[in-house]
Amino acid sequence: MNSAGTERRVAFQGIHGAYSEDAVYKFFGEGIRTLPCAEFEDVFASVNKGDASHGVVPVENSLEGSVARVNDLLLEHDLTVVGEIIIFVKHCLIGHPDVEIEDITRVYSHPQALGQSRTFLSRYPQWEKVPSYDTAGSVKIIKERGDKSEAAIASARTAKEYGMKILKEGIQNSHQNYTRFFVIEKTASINPRGDKTSLVFATKNVAGALYACLGVFAEHSVNLTKLESRPRRDRAWEYVFYVDIDGHLDHPNVSGAITDLVRRASFVKILGSYRRAELPSEQE
Amino acid sequence: MNSAGTERRVAFQGIHGAYSEDAVYKFFGEGIRTLPCAEFEDVFASVNKGDASHGVVPVENSLEGSVARVNDLLLEHDLTVVGEIIIFVKHCLIGHPDVEIEDITRVYSHPQALGQSRTFLSRYPQWEKVPSYDTAGSVKIIKERGDKSEAAIASARTAKEYGMKILKEGIQNSHQNYTRFFVIEKTASINPRGDKTSLVFATKNVAGALYACLGVFAEHSVNLTKLESRPRRDRAWEYVFYVDIDGHLDHPNVSGAITDLVRRASFVKILGSYRRAELPSEQE
Repeated sequence: MNSAGTERRVAFQGIHGAYSEDAVYKFFGEGIRTLPCAEFEDVFASVNKGDASHGVVPVENSLEGSVARVNDLLLEHDLTVVGEIIIFVKHCLIGHPDVEIEDITRVYSHPQALGQSRTFLSRYPQWEKVPSYDTAGSVKIIKERGDKSEAAIASARTAKEYGMKILKEGIQNSHQNYTRFFVIEKTASINPRGDKTSLVFATKNVAGALYACLGVFAEHSVNLTKLESRPRRDRAWEYVFYVDIDGHLDHPNVSGAITDLVRRASFVKILGSYRRAELPSEQE
Repeated sequence: MNSAGTERRVAFQGIHGAYSEDAVYKFFGEGIRTLPCAEFEDVFASVNKGDASHGVVPVENSLEGSVARVNDLLLEHDLTVVGEIIIFVKHCLIGHPDVEIEDITRVYSHPQALGQSRTFLSRYPQWEKVPSYDTAGSVKIIKERGDKSEAAIASARTAKEYGMKILKEGIQNSHQNYTRFFVIEKTASINPRGDKTSLVFATKNVAGALYACLGVFAEHSVNLTKLESRPRRDRAWEYVFYVDIDGHLDHPNVSGAITDLVRRASFVKILGSYRRAELPSEQE
């Protein structure tokens, strides 16, 4: 992290109040300046151009799976992963300051958040559910419309951000709803305090090639904690593999495994080393 | 496929016109009866209860990645995969029968389809973009509203289904937008004509366990065509692996590999064997 504290600004996708901004504050502290971006592409571009010192992007969610677009962008760009953040996703029903849950007739949110709150919403079959672009944006919409019978589903912090009221907290169906984020930076240096490393590789298109590539980790006693395939965007039905391993890139076992992997794979790209994030409790 | 032709009915998620229904027709032919379901859960339930003879569910998309909820449901249920379908996703701008593109001021669609048509939509910055639950549903919405300045983004077949007009065909940003579907059935028998097999396994939680499990495929000369990890819903930070391999389950190499895998893995679940689908051309 090569920026002075006062110059730091962290780009994220969404508007103020978004879960991604929660992740920014969790990693950098409440005082950090944030830069809301319309698209994931804009987060990467802001960090590349120096408009932001860092970016924070979601890479996987425990219920919805990996965020494909972000994983593609990590491969396309040369930014370095310097941190990992895990946040517990707790949806809240949010309304105008002086209303009660009985006053509500219409609820806005992203289709995914509406789906993740289905069990709660099924208790109010008379409510109209209206899809919107994102969770935080749905709070902004109901505030601007000013209709007190309308509510939105978003994070607790969004309610505070827009001066709105939490009518009901923790309305998500599952209490195993976690999102994992990467902190990205335009730097060539690997975070020296990392105890976990992420990389991407592609295999040459022969039977057993993936097994041969994974063999390097077993041979060097390096523990794989994640392995995921993504189709190659440039070649139909060939795959790239996203791998997380225990240990810093400078650890002799890790560097030994990578040295062997480079010889067996079609390409290898190190995303970065970083400190492992702890699984947060629901109370956070 | 154990149902008589006349009794067949295929469940899919969405309303008539959905891309999933395109996949149904591609596999079963245009004459098949279809059963629209609100949620993926309902597709699995319909097949389980016998309301439908088969279900068709999306498992991965070339741009958006795997469909996490469907992969979880394949693991939770005991339905058998008997077929694979790949369709090319071609978004169309759809309006009322007697309008031209110049008349449009507002466009409805699922946020993903709006995002996938961003390049085209950026030519019309004055258009209001309105998110909706699904692509086919957005055509139904504009038809019911009857406002001729409104358009929707969905498949060509949806326009036909609702008697609406295609204003512009193929407006998606990428021409590598494919969705892969599984055909599921309540049967204990493996499709004898399959040349590809899908299965799920979990590793015992020890270093090198994944490598040891994958070794069975290399040792038996079985080619892995896909490998994807998903978090275990019941155990935080443990993973299950979704694997596709070349060959039918009855092939001696495949059955040999599976026999060895069962000894090394925490569990193994065979999803089914099926005929490999061809990559469709854009013209379809």
